[in-house]
This record gives sequence, C-alpha cells and structure tokens, in this order.
Amino acid sequence: MKKAIVLLSGGLDSSTVLAIAQEQGYECYTLSFDYGQLHRAELEASGRLSQQMGAVQHKVVSLGLRDIGGSALTDDSIAVPTDPGVGIPVTYVPARNTVFLALALGWAEVLGSFDIFIGVNAVDYSGYPDCRPEFIAAFESLAQLATKAGVEGGRFHIHTPLISMSKAEIIQCGQRLGVDYSQTTSCYAADAAGRACGRCDACRLRRVGFEQAGVPDPTHYQP
Amino acid sequence: MKKAIVLLSGGLDSSTVLAIAQEQGYECYTLSFDYGQLHRAELEASGRLSQQMGAVQHKVVSLGLRDIGGSALTDDSIAVPTDPGVGIPVTYVPARNTVFLALALGWAEVLGSFDIFIGVNAVDYSGYPDCRPEFIAAFESLAQLATKAGVEGGRFHIHTPLISMSKAEIIQCGQRLGVDYSQTTSCYAADAAGRACGRCDACRLRRVGFEQAGVPDPTHYQP
Repeated sequence: MKKAIVLLSGGLDSSTVLAIAQEQGYECYTLSFDYGQLHRAELEASGRLSQQMGAVQHKVVSLGLRDIGGSALTDDSIAVPTDPGVGIPVTYVPARNTVFLALALGWAEVLGSFDIFIGVNAVDYSGYPDCRPEFIAAFESLAQLATKAGVEGGRFHIHTPLISMSKAEIIQCGQRLGVDYSQTTSCYAADAAGRACGRCDACRLRRVGFEQAGVPDPTHYQP
Repeated sequence: MKKAIVLLSGGLDSSTVLAIAQEQGYECYTLSFDYGQLHRAELEASGRLSQQMGAVQHKVVSLGLRDIGGSALTDDSIAVPTDPGVGIPVTYVPARNTVFLALALGWAEVLGSFDIFIGVNAVDYSGYPDCRPEFIAAFESLAQLATKAGVEGGRFHIHTPLISMSKAEIIQCGQRLGVDYSQTTSCYAADAAGRACGRCDACRLRRVGFEQAGVPDPTHYQP
C-alpha cells in the first residue's frame, strides 16, 4: 500500500481530500500545523477527523507563522473581514502553502512517500496565488530538485483533487464518501467551542456550498 | 535603500553572506530558525552576529523540524558522523532549504522585500540536493507564482553569492569584509559554550578552508 501525506486543517476541503486519498487506496498520514491559531478548535478538529477517518498517523508540527505576521490569520492587529471585498484578501498568509508543502515534503521523504495531497481550490477560492495549478506544478518540479529522494529518481506528485471543483461539488463528493461535515471547522473566527461565526469569507463560501449542493448545512454556528 | 532577508545560521558561510549583502548596499533583515538545535550556541551566535554586523532586525522563527525528524540534526537517535562517508550524509535534513526559503519568502513579502540571501555552496558542500543552482532557480520561479507580490509583478531574487566559491575563497572574502569568524559556529556538535568538536563534517570542511586560505583558524575548539 502506498503512503500519502494529507495536509489536514480540519476544514471542509481538507477532510474531503482525506476521504478521496483513502478511497484511492493510500495509507494516509495526516499533517496539521500549530501556528498559534486564534482558536484551538481547528487543530482539535483535525486530530479528531484523522482518527475517525482511519489515517495511520496524525502529526502536528509547530510553526512560527505568527513570528512573521502579515495576515489577519497570523496577526491579531489585522481584523478578519466580513465582506468579500476586492482582490486578494487580508486573510492571505504570505507564502503559506509553500511553507506547508515544504514541511509535507520533508515528512514524505522521511516516510518514503512520494504522494502529497492538498485541498487547494481554484474555483470558489478567495484569490490566493498559492491555490493555482501553476503554483502546484512549480512546487512539484521543485520537489524533485530539493530532495535526496528526488535526486535518486523518485517522482513526487502533489495531488489536488479539489482544484477544479466548486464548493457544492466538493460537498457532494464528501457526502458520497461519508465525510461527517458536522465535525469540520472552516471558520476564520470560530469560538473556543469550534462554532462558526457565519459571517467571514470562509463561512460564506461554505454556507453557499451547502445551499448549492442541496445538502442541509450541519455547521455548528455561534448563537 | 532596498531591503533584503538574509538567512543567518550563525555559521561561517551565512555570516559571510550577511557581510556581502551589507556591502552591496542592502538594508538587511536576518532570519534564524529555532528547530530545537541540540545546542543553543548556534542561535545565540546568529543573534550576536546580526547585531554586531549592523542588521536592521533579527528574527528567530520557531519551526518543528524535530517533529518530522529524519536527520542527525533533528533526531537524537541518529548520530552525527565523524567521517565524510559516501553519498548524501545523514546530516541532510529533508526539504530543509525549501522550508527555510519558504519562510524567508513569507517575511520578505511582509516587509515588501524581493531579495533573499542564502549561503548555499555547491563546491565544498556535503552533497545536499538543496544547495545546487538548479534548486535555487526552481525556488525563484516558484516564488513568483506563490505570492501576492509576485502575482502583482514584483520579481523575487534568491541571491547565492557563495554558490561557486571554495571554503577558502569564502574565508578570504569574509576576512576582506571584516567578518569576525571567532564569533561564528559551524559545528554540528558544538558544546553548550559554542565550542566546536573539531571532528564532524562541518568542522573538517571549515578547518581545511582556513588552512587553504592561509588564514589562522580562530575557531574555539573543545579541549
């Protein structure tokens, strides 16, 4: 059985990706990052989902993104916006997916895996540059050159099964695969109990996705 | 004055790179990583050197490379070798320079900088894949695609002034620029006082470098 690293934030997208990787027959190792998220709900959700969904191992790697800042998600002085706005939003974390994929690549090499799954999406996304297919292709090329395993002839593959799916399609796919979305947390401003604000960009995209998928929204919202 | 991020480990190479970036007229922001190095001497050296050499700011970002392991530098159960050996040595940290450059890229974007300096070397090096020019070129391409600043038209440049210099040439260059090598720590197994073991790969390369440069070796060795 081939091993895969699955980047798992505990949100709707990455949980669906885990289900897809499992269905494709990979032995899944899930990876989350502790970068001082405002609420621990996201990290707790990822560990719980990994276990419930049958991953072999769940790893949480600490990462000082707050030391760098520059985003509403890593700097408390920048507010999470409640309106979609124009252009790339302030929730963009500089170079985040590059950092996440680099650490996933390191763990893949340690495990002898050449397959990394990430839930980036270029359709219903927020305009982040590091969610685009050309970024993923460039990272795949880099992985070959960056590693001992690549130099020795192994071929790394960055899997992005959601990249051209709408949020509604993602939800329909996950439902078919039995993902329990009530256990996932997408909100940028969840409370300590993991309940969603219902107002941020992530909440808005998620709610519209359930509506368009014709699936009842199981999200736990704040009162 | 243009801003540059300089990756500064506190060793001989990165200290020379900082001196070169300063000489080229950059306003330098130095970046080190706290990944649970066995000895704090390396981190202390980087902070001290940054200040002494006139960098604008020194940042230490925490990074859970020990959560991933797979190298003599990040896993205590793998011994640091004292012989050069054959092939890529066990001191290779999977995807390390990819992770380091990704975090440097994030900070560069926050600061509005497009210049990152890294002391990789493809001559007297230990065989690490992520020290080669083709890796650096691939990362530079990735940086354009990965970031808001790149998408908006800025051109990132990864500077590798040491890439084709021998260790002796690096030392001669640093001496000309006034680098105080007695303050630098290169050893993979330095003691708590920062004194070098004199036996590991890094010590061996450094000592031969001073010999070939015809410069007295100012390294503090363990008794």
